[in-house]
Amino acid sequence: MNLTTINIPGMERRARAAFVNSLSGFKSANLIGTSDGEGATNLAIMSSLTHLGSHPPLFSLVIRPGGDERHTLRNILNTGVFSVNHVTAEMVEQAHQTAARYAPDESEFDATGLCPVWLDNFAAPMVREANVRLGLQLRQHMKLAINDTHLVIGEVVMACVPEQACRADSSLDLGAAGSVALSGLDTYHSGGKQKRMAYAKPGLPPREID
Amino acid sequence: MNLTTINIPGMERRARAAFVNSLSGFKSANLIGTSDGEGATNLAIMSSLTHLGSHPPLFSLVIRPGGDERHTLRNILNTGVFSVNHVTAEMVEQAHQTAARYAPDESEFDATGLCPVWLDNFAAPMVREANVRLGLQLRQHMKLAINDTHLVIGEVVMACVPEQACRADSSLDLGAAGSVALSGLDTYHSGGKQKRMAYAKPGLPPREID
Repeated sequence: MNLTTINIPGMERRARAAFVNSLSGFKSANLIGTSDGEGATNLAIMSSLTHLGSHPPLFSLVIRPGGDERHTLRNILNTGVFSVNHVTAEMVEQAHQTAARYAPDESEFDATGLCPVWLDNFAAPMVREANVRLGLQLRQHMKLAINDTHLVIGEVVMACVPEQACRADSSLDLGAAGSVALSGLDTYHSGGKQKRMAYAKPGLPPREID
Repeated sequence: MNLTTINIPGMERRARAAFVNSLSGFKSANLIGTSDGEGATNLAIMSSLTHLGSHPPLFSLVIRPGGDERHTLRNILNTGVFSVNHVTAEMVEQAHQTAARYAPDESEFDATGLCPVWLDNFAAPMVREANVRLGLQLRQHMKLAINDTHLVIGEVVMACVPEQACRADSSLDLGAAGSVALSGLDTYHSGGKQKRMAYAKPGLPPREID
């Protein structure tokens, strides 16, 4: 391929956002479910969930300053919990639509037709249409001084996953789960080819498993 | 699909790592290139690069405590720079192999056969086989007290991308760039179907573009 060098500082604002959001590679596509603790729900698509550790199971979420995502942050800080729901190929349209700037009193569940599910006494709604649903408890919140984004760290306290996606080693087959990947701001990817690699060791050549 | 609830605290250590690493959804697959400033190079596959903002173009990288990844962290702190190189379908074997615990004096470039490229006076090697290559300057480093992981924040100061992946709106077509996604600890995904969605607005139904 012919590579070209891009001058990011010279780009117009929207072009730069489209470009820079493409640079990290593929991202997760998750619906973050929250409530205000008084019955009002919020659902927001986010691509920044990142694994911090497995013991305890910790994930971070980056929440940009301003915009509709503030409802998610305010709800998480108020209730101490949020849900993570993998976007599937079947609900890409509805999931993407949660990014629209709805009026503050309108829930993205009502606006998109996705169904809230309430589990046990967990104060955040999950998404019925999702095959992978997690409940997370807030463990830490910090504002990154460098650009005022918020880093929210949560611990997984509930995990519902599809039986048919569970492999013998306890990993999940995300293709079988129907999960999609996100690239840039708006492109959803599903059903790609999978190649699974054995644990890498210095003395052995790389080899495929399954 | 039939959903099942998984009891994470009850899982054996390796099973839990495999499971929890699958939960966030699809991840980026990037080779992080660094040097010690005296000619020794390091290359490590990582899946935690996360977009923090576009103006300036900031990304975070999570580096676990211990293990071989410490070389990457030490090099970044010493030289102030690192490279990010998208893994392509053609180099999955070599990229995955960089996770092997090589001896401290052996470079993953030599061990895997991937070729370092040095640009301008940038003190971190890029990967010749990669189609998307970024140069990042360290902006902030912090240790997260909650589990001793390191958060490294870098600003993109160089970006080389394939001409054929550049869309009119400046976003990148990662499928055309040959980039792969990663799930769990060992599964690489390429060549999936793409669905691109228009900017979401409250009054309009979701609609596909392209």
